[in-house]
Amino acid sequence: MKIKMNQISPSTQLFRFGTPFNTEAVTLNIDASSFCETENLPQFKCEKKDNTYLFTYVMNKKQCIFGLGESLGGMNKRSHNYRMWNSDDPSHTEEKDALYGSHPFFIISDENEKIGIFIDFPTEFHIDAGFTQYDILSIKVPSENFDLYIFTGNSELQIVREYLKLTGTPYMPPKWAFGFQQSRWSYPNENAVTNVADKMADAGIPCDAIYIDIDYMDNYKVFTVDKNKFADFKKFTAEMKQRGIRLIPIIDPGVRVEENYSVYEDGVKNNYFCKESDGKTDFTAAVWPGLVHFPDFLNDNARTWWGQLYHFLWDAGIDGIWNDMNEPAIFYTPRKLEAAKKKIAERTINNSWDFFEIRDSLGTLANRRDDYAEMYHLPGDGKSGIVSHENLHNLYGLNMTRATVDEFKKDFPDKRIFLLTRSSSAGAHRMAAIWMGDNQSWWSHLLLHIQMLVSLNICGFFYTGADVCGFSGNVSNELALRWMQFAIFSPLFRNHAALGTRNQEPYNFDDKTTNRMRHFIRTRYKLLPYMYTEFVNAVKTLTPLCTPTAFYDKSCQSLECQDEFFLGRSILVTPVYQPNAQGRNVYLAGNRPYLYVKLCNNGLDNFNIVQAGNFYAEYSADEVAFFIKENCGVPTGVLEEDGKTFNTVEIIAFVSGVATASYYEDDGETNDYLKNNFFQIDFTIKKEINNSFCIQATTQGNRQPEIKNYNFVIVDEKGGITRQTFSL
Amino acid sequence: MKIKMNQISPSTQLFRFGTPFNTEAVTLNIDASSFCETENLPQFKCEKKDNTYLFTYVMNKKQCIFGLGESLGGMNKRSHNYRMWNSDDPSHTEEKDALYGSHPFFIISDENEKIGIFIDFPTEFHIDAGFTQYDILSIKVPSENFDLYIFTGNSELQIVREYLKLTGTPYMPPKWAFGFQQSRWSYPNENAVTNVADKMADAGIPCDAIYIDIDYMDNYKVFTVDKNKFADFKKFTAEMKQRGIRLIPIIDPGVRVEENYSVYEDGVKNNYFCKESDGKTDFTAAVWPGLVHFPDFLNDNARTWWGQLYHFLWDAGIDGIWNDMNEPAIFYTPRKLEAAKKKIAERTINNSWDFFEIRDSLGTLANRRDDYAEMYHLPGDGKSGIVSHENLHNLYGLNMTRATVDEFKKDFPDKRIFLLTRSSSAGAHRMAAIWMGDNQSWWSHLLLHIQMLVSLNICGFFYTGADVCGFSGNVSNELALRWMQFAIFSPLFRNHAALGTRNQEPYNFDDKTTNRMRHFIRTRYKLLPYMYTEFVNAVKTLTPLCTPTAFYDKSCQSLECQDEFFLGRSILVTPVYQPNAQGRNVYLAGNRPYLYVKLCNNGLDNFNIVQAGNFYAEYSADEVAFFIKENCGVPTGVLEEDGKTFNTVEIIAFVSGVATASYYEDDGETNDYLKNNFFQIDFTIKKEINNSFCIQATTQGNRQPEIKNYNFVIVDEKGGITRQTFSL
Repeated sequence: MKIKMNQISPSTQLFRFGTPFNTEAVTLNIDASSFCETENLPQFKCEKKDNTYLFTYVMNKKQCIFGLGESLGGMNKRSHNYRMWNSDDPSHTEEKDALYGSHPFFIISDENEKIGIFIDFPTEFHIDAGFTQYDILSIKVPSENFDLYIFTGNSELQIVREYLKLTGTPYMPPKWAFGFQQSRWSYPNENAVTNVADKMADAGIPCDAIYIDIDYMDNYKVFTVDKNKFADFKKFTAEMKQRGIRLIPIIDPGVRVEENYSVYEDGVKNNYFCKESDGKTDFTAAVWPGLVHFPDFLNDNARTWWGQLYHFLWDAGIDGIWNDMNEPAIFYTPRKLEAAKKKIAERTINNSWDFFEIRDSLGTLANRRDDYAEMYHLPGDGKSGIVSHENLHNLYGLNMTRATVDEFKKDFPDKRIFLLTRSSSAGAHRMAAIWMGDNQSWWSHLLLHIQMLVSLNICGFFYTGADVCGFSGNVSNELALRWMQFAIFSPLFRNHAALGTRNQEPYNFDDKTTNRMRHFIRTRYKLLPYMYTEFVNAVKTLTPLCTPTAFYDKSCQSLECQDEFFLGRSILVTPVYQPNAQGRNVYLAGNRPYLYVKLCNNGLDNFNIVQAGNFYAEYSADEVAFFIKENCGVPTGVLEEDGKTFNTVEIIAFVSGVATASYYEDDGETNDYLKNNFFQIDFTIKKEINNSFCIQATTQGNRQPEIKNYNFVIVDEKGGITRQTFSL
Repeated sequence: MKIKMNQISPSTQLFRFGTPFNTEAVTLNIDASSFCETENLPQFKCEKKDNTYLFTYVMNKKQCIFGLGESLGGMNKRSHNYRMWNSDDPSHTEEKDALYGSHPFFIISDENEKIGIFIDFPTEFHIDAGFTQYDILSIKVPSENFDLYIFTGNSELQIVREYLKLTGTPYMPPKWAFGFQQSRWSYPNENAVTNVADKMADAGIPCDAIYIDIDYMDNYKVFTVDKNKFADFKKFTAEMKQRGIRLIPIIDPGVRVEENYSVYEDGVKNNYFCKESDGKTDFTAAVWPGLVHFPDFLNDNARTWWGQLYHFLWDAGIDGIWNDMNEPAIFYTPRKLEAAKKKIAERTINNSWDFFEIRDSLGTLANRRDDYAEMYHLPGDGKSGIVSHENLHNLYGLNMTRATVDEFKKDFPDKRIFLLTRSSSAGAHRMAAIWMGDNQSWWSHLLLHIQMLVSLNICGFFYTGADVCGFSGNVSNELALRWMQFAIFSPLFRNHAALGTRNQEPYNFDDKTTNRMRHFIRTRYKLLPYMYTEFVNAVKTLTPLCTPTAFYDKSCQSLECQDEFFLGRSILVTPVYQPNAQGRNVYLAGNRPYLYVKLCNNGLDNFNIVQAGNFYAEYSADEVAFFIKENCGVPTGVLEEDGKTFNTVEIIAFVSGVATASYYEDDGETNDYLKNNFFQIDFTIKKEINNSFCIQATTQGNRQPEIKNYNFVIVDEKGGITRQTFSL
């Protein structure tokens, strides 16, 4: 077999099959003249049958697979099946092979070798990561046109960096996005939103954002606000912002078919909507608004048009957007609904199989593969003619994101956008945040939140999170507590719940529980200096914020460790994610001791030195517990009464020799940090012979620091505590 | 409040509310004259509102809840909701509160106190075990007529024994039931069954039973065999039995409505079927056969009639029965189906909510609470008139079991019945086995198998198990291996899969996997002497075969340990139930060392002494690994070439002082063991001062032993191995 190969960097090879569609995943400029021909792929066996390529790789017993973004199957993705097909599937049970996004980048690794793979292809294909046969990884691409990249490197992090050099620098949200966010389907009107803000304030719980779900609109018509619910939306938005709370409205792509509705009429008039196979008739499906047309985000003009529509919200003072349902989700198409109704009316029921058939004729109308085959795009400038949605399905969400982001950038070139989007694909990580979709109030989904954070980070989605306490179903008291306790370490920290489920706002529990949740959320704000400093560092160095212990240590325990991760450079997060636990077994990777920190609700913090290896860590729902690596320091805020703001930074450092700690500031809103408008202070804390500590600092950036006073809580290797201060 | 109380034993109090229906759960004779009046329940707050009783109990932080039989929520049942309502729900996701059986017996325990609770009530009620508020256990019984028992004792095992004294001695299956069993929906005909038997034999995999699922029948008509599939059923059954394989046919309660079908016609003629509210019309619903009537198992005559129908199978040489669908499962009722069709035809779809309504009108027809309210019984001799099924729903499965068992006992008074039944309630444990219903090929359901074994054992269901490798969905290579590896410790060891899923018979994998599965299954047979000895001991002493570590040790780790259990008196089972693991963290309860045994596929076994506490145990899919308690011995068979039979018993003993080990034999088929027709040899193995071992034996029972030669593999506390023999 002859394959076109392009050595695009010493560690990255591109193998080009046929003439791939440009998915926009790759931003690196690839020299088209640098292709040569090769017979084989390194490591992989490559076979072609009909129009399908099959790549197989024989795994040894210890090889792990990391990455694959938004998918099930643990941090180590081996032993599971994956299907790259963006899917609105609200039941994330173990066997599922496809969720809302497709991120076909992964690393096969063991002690000796690390190989990265990225398949740049815009629609469905399959990865069997040792499901059928544990030793065999196979990738099946049903096309002759796609790019396959192979990365090599000495470490997984090096391979991730190569992938991010290829596909772009991760999304940087505004700073307020790191605060606590409250959501529910739905706070449908001013009163409901005000009530949440009031209750939060009454309970002393800081909060940076409240989401408004589909009910704020007039009859689910996108880019409208129901005046009966929000009499003066702009005024209300401003009032809330005055209170420190951003409103984040949901936007769905489906445009309700309704005469005199301007978005609908403009779309029809200008051919901005996806078409039927005739290339003329607007494709119709049903989602929340009933019958809708879908904007053709693959088309340049439609994308621009859509992006401009957000002005309706920017003008109302909205700072953040939540793009949902953009796989796009389809509840049914009128054509198949009619066919189902006909079958139900006419079919004689002779046995239960007949019944199942008519039942399923209605029950399986949502998210049908064959509906997508009936929807067409006019990609780019539209001059190349129509393309079936089926052939570029996975790009729909990304291109809705592009629509939102590109026009925002034109109008607010300096401002960072807050954009949360559900459906995504490779490359979307540089444009917006995703969350993990419609999870459940299950303990296993708390664990999934932990695991998917790591998988998504490896694919460049550094700012992400799951619906805290679970979207569907009722949350138990204990699960709510443990989830909130963990989620303070989740870059996106949003509590969100579905219609009809238990009220899970932090103040909607018994007093003891609410007290604990207040402590968690305030501790989130206390840790914000660390979170933000590390996030910016992650973006700047193309290093995931959340990384598995297996990247640091290749022991059995580390490779098997699926329930903890390093957050930034200094903290190991080890959540309790099982019921009825007073603590958990922790694996402390490497061979150096850690500092076990408990930030307690009673204000008395607790520091203990723990040796590397296995450790049973007790921690209750009264405290926030984590581990600090040796010779690292963690900047925290000394919170004011509001539980949110601070004037002094306190650095908790575990110092046996020379420790480093950084604290970073910028304006939090703009991209000026890229123009040196930031302040960063980098400390070294050196243990002297007489057991005192020498603190030295260097600073970076042009910005005047807001914080000038630094307290140090220094714990030495014997657990002794020294307090020092430092002022600019 | 005045409550009737009866102190029925020093440790058991009965609180009687109103005039309870006799559920048959309790077999102990209760002296009706011994009731006195009391104001309060011990520990519980009791409130009555309308016709509902609410019992609440304030739990401390460390209290665990054990029991509750077939339910989700871990071994410790706290932090979950439970609904006593037998349900055919094939999706055992975390939030589910009701499965196929209702077993409302549980123990609240901590170091200081153990309280047992049993609510004897035949239909729906709720237990909130700290779900809504972690500190509060609440029981809500919507009736004025029920019995509530409170047990006290020094240990959980003592409370279990009191419960079993009240409700009867657990079911004792024939010995062959402890062999490996293979099932699938479906092996529909002689060829398919023969093929399974042949492939097993070719692969050298012993097997004691093959199940035939619904397709063996003529058009799903119960008590028929399709002659096109099994030309001579009796001859075929005999042939298979000749090969050592029992056929186990499925029996569903729904009787197909079909003229000239004798079961249907007899049932109609004699009023054996459940009725509509008029007490006359036979109640009709749809299950596999299409429209069916349900036998009124609550009625004495109908129950006798049904029990006699099994003669059709006993006469064909069948030794074991699988009663399924006996909640009873309902796919739909014709009345509601017509209403749904009407709604679908007439409803105008204005928005998605309209669509959901018509979709769900068909999609929610199964297992509807309101269907059961339209079904009526004539309980007992029928003279007391009709009773709504809704008022005694949970007794339907138990009474189908009674029908099968009672008539079997009349006709084969000495023989043990093999009966596997899906739906059950308290008391059913003394009549038959249950399995854990339609699980999924999920790792979490492997863990659920482990956990539910313990919960069911606490409620008296000693012989039970889950569908190994999972019923619904495709099993991965690795999950199949790990599940089979664990299931050799499951009393019921049945591999079963749903229609359309991956073939998961042990020979249907790659050679390496099949070799490993052969090793597991042969090791099951090797361990049968221990399994059977311990099972009989469990039944005789009313002590669960599978018990949680938390019964032995009240450390945090032990209380939190949800993934291991003691099997009998000597073995700790610690399965690997997570993907990509080379081993697992094990908690070794108590403060004495254990012997870590690995029985390897290469024939070289491996013994290591491990201290109590936390231990990372490596074990691959090539070996069977378990722990033996100090001063215990485990009898195993020295297998012949067939991998099943043995002439010598080898006792693996871990001896630091004086160890005990027992080996038991009986005819395996009859109840003669109750008449002293058994053989048991009890060894003591004493470590002498010179490091040699003195083996002494006593025997029990009148039966001549089959095994006369005993090898001993004795491991001392330093790991030294001594081999000795003993002959009768």
